[in-house]
Amino acid sequence: MLQSHLFAKTLREAPKDDVSVNAEFLIRGGFVDKLVAGVWTYLPLGLRTLENINAIIREEINAIGGVELYMPALQPRDLWETTDRWKVEEMYKLKDRGGRDMGLGWTHEEAITKIALSHISSYRDLPQYAYQIQTKFRDEPRAKSGIIRGREFLMKDLYSFNATREELDVFYEVVKGAYNKIFKRVGLKAYCVEASGGAFTKEYSHEFQVVSDAGEDEIIYCKECLFARNKEVIGDVVNCQSCKKPLATSKSIEVGNIFKLGTKFSEAFGLSFTDENGEKKPVIMGSYGIGPGRLMGTVVEVSHDDHGIIWPESIAPFRVHVLALSSSVNEEAQKVIFDLEQNKVSVLFDDRFGKTPGERFSDADLIGIPWRIVISEKTVKAGKIEVKKRAESEATLMDIGAFLRLIC
Amino acid sequence: MLQSHLFAKTLREAPKDDVSVNAEFLIRGGFVDKLVAGVWTYLPLGLRTLENINAIIREEINAIGGVELYMPALQPRDLWETTDRWKVEEMYKLKDRGGRDMGLGWTHEEAITKIALSHISSYRDLPQYAYQIQTKFRDEPRAKSGIIRGREFLMKDLYSFNATREELDVFYEVVKGAYNKIFKRVGLKAYCVEASGGAFTKEYSHEFQVVSDAGEDEIIYCKECLFARNKEVIGDVVNCQSCKKPLATSKSIEVGNIFKLGTKFSEAFGLSFTDENGEKKPVIMGSYGIGPGRLMGTVVEVSHDDHGIIWPESIAPFRVHVLALSSSVNEEAQKVIFDLEQNKVSVLFDDRFGKTPGERFSDADLIGIPWRIVISEKTVKAGKIEVKKRAESEATLMDIGAFLRLIC
Repeated sequence: MLQSHLFAKTLREAPKDDVSVNAEFLIRGGFVDKLVAGVWTYLPLGLRTLENINAIIREEINAIGGVELYMPALQPRDLWETTDRWKVEEMYKLKDRGGRDMGLGWTHEEAITKIALSHISSYRDLPQYAYQIQTKFRDEPRAKSGIIRGREFLMKDLYSFNATREELDVFYEVVKGAYNKIFKRVGLKAYCVEASGGAFTKEYSHEFQVVSDAGEDEIIYCKECLFARNKEVIGDVVNCQSCKKPLATSKSIEVGNIFKLGTKFSEAFGLSFTDENGEKKPVIMGSYGIGPGRLMGTVVEVSHDDHGIIWPESIAPFRVHVLALSSSVNEEAQKVIFDLEQNKVSVLFDDRFGKTPGERFSDADLIGIPWRIVISEKTVKAGKIEVKKRAESEATLMDIGAFLRLIC
Repeated sequence: MLQSHLFAKTLREAPKDDVSVNAEFLIRGGFVDKLVAGVWTYLPLGLRTLENINAIIREEINAIGGVELYMPALQPRDLWETTDRWKVEEMYKLKDRGGRDMGLGWTHEEAITKIALSHISSYRDLPQYAYQIQTKFRDEPRAKSGIIRGREFLMKDLYSFNATREELDVFYEVVKGAYNKIFKRVGLKAYCVEASGGAFTKEYSHEFQVVSDAGEDEIIYCKECLFARNKEVIGDVVNCQSCKKPLATSKSIEVGNIFKLGTKFSEAFGLSFTDENGEKKPVIMGSYGIGPGRLMGTVVEVSHDDHGIIWPESIAPFRVHVLALSSSVNEEAQKVIFDLEQNKVSVLFDDRFGKTPGERFSDADLIGIPWRIVISEKTVKAGKIEVKKRAESEATLMDIGAFLRLIC
């Protein structure tokens, strides 16, 4: 991919109205553009990163039996009246031509339960695990945390339908495992924290929290064990329940949450099934969310330096950033790119020969692709390429074969 | 994929309020679910089909230099006032918490032109070709054509930014070529028809029309040549301009459209660039749309029989539908599925042993996967599988090796 064809350029300055680190670097790097507060465009670099996150989520959710579908945002008022959630202030509401009240979906428990009415009626139809990666709308009072808190944002929402409470309990733990894999793979250390059910359910739920000053939550956690609690929940406990060491307190970003819904939605909609003995029972449900854009913003918050983003290889928009310092070495650069792409390594090629090397090095640091290769008359004369990891300061001369052995 | 895990079942009846063939078969087959008129869920079978269409579109648009981004639906009133399109009746309008007027995007010329202001300022920044596959909202007065006319629907919209009119003219023809490939690959014969620019521009534009009684447009076309015209445009011409034979008239479905926007949007937003001589000029734009869901519905309209859908292999949700007629041959079925999946053939396995063979054959015809394999005690005894193409009536006994040679 040619950097000059990316539609978006790096910018010297980001708007001053959003002070978060992720907004600053993602806007300046040409990953996103802000239309209004909380409403973002994912530019090509940003969309590639987001899609890498989505691919990891899909792999892990498919692996635990999830099947993907896609539900709409436009939803009629009566759907929400069924569960008495039409009144929720975060829901954007509008009237269509016919004067009918419609809301924009901020979650999809109601929508999927209604669909399930046509498709689940017998124990033979259970269990079902359906998810989507789809756009949600929430009229947030504050939306100042870059892409971490959007008014329009992507969400992976998974819904489980089981015949028994025991099956739900097992699947709930299975989802915890999948979530831990997802966060680890995108480069985040997330604590699984017990929390209240909030607007969803009176049952307990779990949040996944990443320690960061950019967070809006607060957790108490043990730096050595996996022990962590939401500060509202734990009260005044001061030592780790496992290792007895003092607990630390930190701001944190909620990157996922999981809920045992039980029969709340199935009873509201009359979603029941006939069991093996012909007895009619309500379906037992669960709901599991992750925001891919929020994950992306959180990675920027925890993985950057003064110069820009440091993407983990797993979600970086490209693996290698190739800079040919002058058009005189373009031919050699093309050979290197050919070798990389033949080995399925994705490459962003900085073809902006009109810019100074200094500007281009700065842009590479800002964009944060894991490996930078510089090709100059000096490296060509030496028959080498100059390789630098984004996270390290030292560059090394090596030949392309050695580099391929290093990263493939 | 197990048919019992698809979340959705086949249904005996579709709602009576939508009489289109595509709604009937897609609802009954478990591909889609209607929330309200024009607002659809894509169930797992439907989403797989839609994503196959999206993949073809992405390949062809990437091949002509398109880069993908993703713009939001929530858009402030002032964006639309810039081009005097806030008044458009099809736009859903709402007020947010702060009382600010917002519209839901029914197209994205305004949004992308505004983004381009930050990223295009010099001839060095041109050309740019950016597209998205994203959800649009239009408050359609009628929405009775199944997924062909939605109030919320997916759209591939591509926007071109050029320095000169000549460059736009060349790219416009390049897009025509890509569109023809896309329609052919998804299994449609689309005529490229000259049309008025409509709400977009006073310049001429082109529509791509598929002959079908389900259409809302009308074209006059030559069955032998590629000649075709919108009936409104052509007037009373009765013979083909190429072969001079009499023209046919038919209803048709518009599956794509392309517009030369010229400087309409760049002038409204002040999107200009400095050319090689330091002269400031407005950027020359174009806009190119295809609705993937509409394509999917159109394929159903033109490719079905009395029993159900006949998917082209290129977009079918799975290539092979395997039916094991009894649980006693399940092990043999698993071997066949293993062989198919090892050869990268996607398989839907009908594991619903509780249903009669008759019900399962009917469902297979309704769902319309291109190849049906039946495994029964009879076929196992013969050491064969029974193969039938959805579009043909005769089944053939063959061994799995022969089948793999046939389709791989």
